[in-house]
Amino acid sequence: MKTIPGGITAPIGFRAAGVHAGIKEGSPADNLDCALVVSTRPAYVAGVFTQNVMKSPPVFWNQAICQDGEAQAVFINSGNANAATGEQGRKDVQATAVHVANGAKYGSDKVCICSTGVIGVPLPMRRIEHGIDDCIDSLSAQRNLDAAKAIMTTDTVPKEYAIELELAGKRVRIGSMAKGSGMINPNMATMICIITTDANLPKDIMPSLLKSAVDSSFNQMCIDNDMSTSDTVLLFANERSECPEITPDSALYEPFVHALNHVCEHMAKWLVKDGEGATKFVEIAIKGAPSDDDAKAVARAIGNSQLCKTAFFGEDPNWGRFACAAGYAGVDFDPQDLTIALNDVTICKNGLAADYAEDDAAAVMQQSEFTIHVALGGGPGTAIFWTSDLSHEYVSINADYRT
Amino acid sequence: MKTIPGGITAPIGFRAAGVHAGIKEGSPADNLDCALVVSTRPAYVAGVFTQNVMKSPPVFWNQAICQDGEAQAVFINSGNANAATGEQGRKDVQATAVHVANGAKYGSDKVCICSTGVIGVPLPMRRIEHGIDDCIDSLSAQRNLDAAKAIMTTDTVPKEYAIELELAGKRVRIGSMAKGSGMINPNMATMICIITTDANLPKDIMPSLLKSAVDSSFNQMCIDNDMSTSDTVLLFANERSECPEITPDSALYEPFVHALNHVCEHMAKWLVKDGEGATKFVEIAIKGAPSDDDAKAVARAIGNSQLCKTAFFGEDPNWGRFACAAGYAGVDFDPQDLTIALNDVTICKNGLAADYAEDDAAAVMQQSEFTIHVALGGGPGTAIFWTSDLSHEYVSINADYRT
Repeated sequence: MKTIPGGITAPIGFRAAGVHAGIKEGSPADNLDCALVVSTRPAYVAGVFTQNVMKSPPVFWNQAICQDGEAQAVFINSGNANAATGEQGRKDVQATAVHVANGAKYGSDKVCICSTGVIGVPLPMRRIEHGIDDCIDSLSAQRNLDAAKAIMTTDTVPKEYAIELELAGKRVRIGSMAKGSGMINPNMATMICIITTDANLPKDIMPSLLKSAVDSSFNQMCIDNDMSTSDTVLLFANERSECPEITPDSALYEPFVHALNHVCEHMAKWLVKDGEGATKFVEIAIKGAPSDDDAKAVARAIGNSQLCKTAFFGEDPNWGRFACAAGYAGVDFDPQDLTIALNDVTICKNGLAADYAEDDAAAVMQQSEFTIHVALGGGPGTAIFWTSDLSHEYVSINADYRT
Repeated sequence: MKTIPGGITAPIGFRAAGVHAGIKEGSPADNLDCALVVSTRPAYVAGVFTQNVMKSPPVFWNQAICQDGEAQAVFINSGNANAATGEQGRKDVQATAVHVANGAKYGSDKVCICSTGVIGVPLPMRRIEHGIDDCIDSLSAQRNLDAAKAIMTTDTVPKEYAIELELAGKRVRIGSMAKGSGMINPNMATMICIITTDANLPKDIMPSLLKSAVDSSFNQMCIDNDMSTSDTVLLFANERSECPEITPDSALYEPFVHALNHVCEHMAKWLVKDGEGATKFVEIAIKGAPSDDDAKAVARAIGNSQLCKTAFFGEDPNWGRFACAAGYAGVDFDPQDLTIALNDVTICKNGLAADYAEDDAAAVMQQSEFTIHVALGGGPGTAIFWTSDLSHEYVSINADYRT
């Protein structure tokens, strides 16, 4: 497995475009806000979506397509989430898909739609339609970065990634692009990630493949404690590689799963690193819990705690806050079994302050990336979780986002 | 029922003191950090405590006393929570209680202990003992404000309150003092509230009286999303009023319950208003939920959301964030039934943007106090919740708290 250029269009037979259509009010002409990704031939699609009751119309639209499992394109706009827009929102999703389908020459039921941005404002359909037209005109295997830029909202950098692996002597590629960056939480929040592959995947295994990859990546991270109306991960597979079919019982299966999980993990970590106002990337590694679910609960309690996150920002090895968050996670453990370490500096042992040099602990937290290891006892449960700090910049970004 | 001066010593037969013992490192001599409240004659006590697994040794100590239900004093220090301090912490609580008991001339099993401040650092016992001696020397019915000052950590103002009501032609008083102000969450977090009354309460009804009052006050508020190791509410009743016994079947019962709930609600709201960095006091009023528990879950999701709280700070009537938080609360409702209003300005109707003037909505949020009304449908469930905003000051306070 090796990293290759090309992002979302690295796999054979995918084209992309990213254009400016003025969806974001007052955005300059070089501010891209419409992206289109198409497969040059029919492809399979699987999706994982937000659990929010207030799911946006595009989420319902994509869920219906993913039930069928076949799609050939995804159109994405930033600047407007088309969420909490009711019947008008539903009509606008359909009109968007029809407009793409008319230009792309296949049915609207083969076109997924994602929208990200402000909630509760109807889509500016004239501009969307112009954006679609411009996207179709400029589709290319070299426009991957434009597409990645066009889906950004408060992200500071476009995020794309591609890998190539060899299976049965043939090369298979996986490409991806994603946007964050606030409102990211277990269950994915406002993130969008599009994954493409030219692998020959049986349609019926794609949903579980993707679900599993998302569970060990996008579902074990947070930036803030919110979960959005729009979060979506889509996986497209178009069988353009010469590699044989990757069935669950073939020798190709495990290496492919590993590669797909790697791509999702790479993108998930990147989203956290580029989280709103984030200055730290913190991995929380739990072991010794009664179960994996318990371990996850403890990891999330620490990763979501405002007090822990401000301690990260303040570079303060205040292990009492980490212990306290572990204590209210709803998991039963004996405080006397609690051990906490920052990288290799043990700061809490048997539930008490360990014998450590404050400078050593502070030195770990001054790094831009570090790991908090928490051991709860002798149980088999483990979990990994990624989080960021809570900074002044986060408050500034979110206090001023809309007005 | 009327407000009276005197705080915690307003009821007959209570004395208080607050002194400086240097528990907070580097604190100036006028920075009080030890408080003592005593009843001049034996009293009943009931308590409600944190649900955190990492309960501090003082919490265990008080739980044991409250099982017995009789106590005559409570000693409180700020600056050090005596939490995550293990066996040494347990010994220190006992030694503190014995020291108070020796000076006050009654058993250590009649002395409750509360500690608030940094976690994981052993109590400085020499200073604690000096503090106790000074408190005992200065006990007075006029030292209520000193006591309220001595329990403060990041609070900006001391909080005390007292009321008097007439029952059966006799006057009964309820006094209180409390400290917040971060790490306050449903289930009470790092708050401490001491309540005194000279009412004649049967010992066996006190736990349920207090639990009910706490559920409708301290358990329906948050400042951040953390729950501490130390949170404690204690109610002392010393029967010094001439009013007859307040049994559940007497006509005195309802008025007294109402008064006790009022005191708790008053203190809870004050804690939110003085929350770390808080510039807004926001009441969240839910109705139409399937059940009260569902309504509470929605209220808490909004009240705990970092995105909603930064919107409060930014005075941004971004109803999409409120709708979004309602949507991930784990409560099933139909988005078409969702209505959201800021005071009397309806900003979302049937799950869509209502027809309102942006200026009117912004004007509500520019106030220091306002209410978000959320209707979810036709169900019977309602809830009230109090929260604050998430400001730069919150980040500053908590990034720099310990180091």
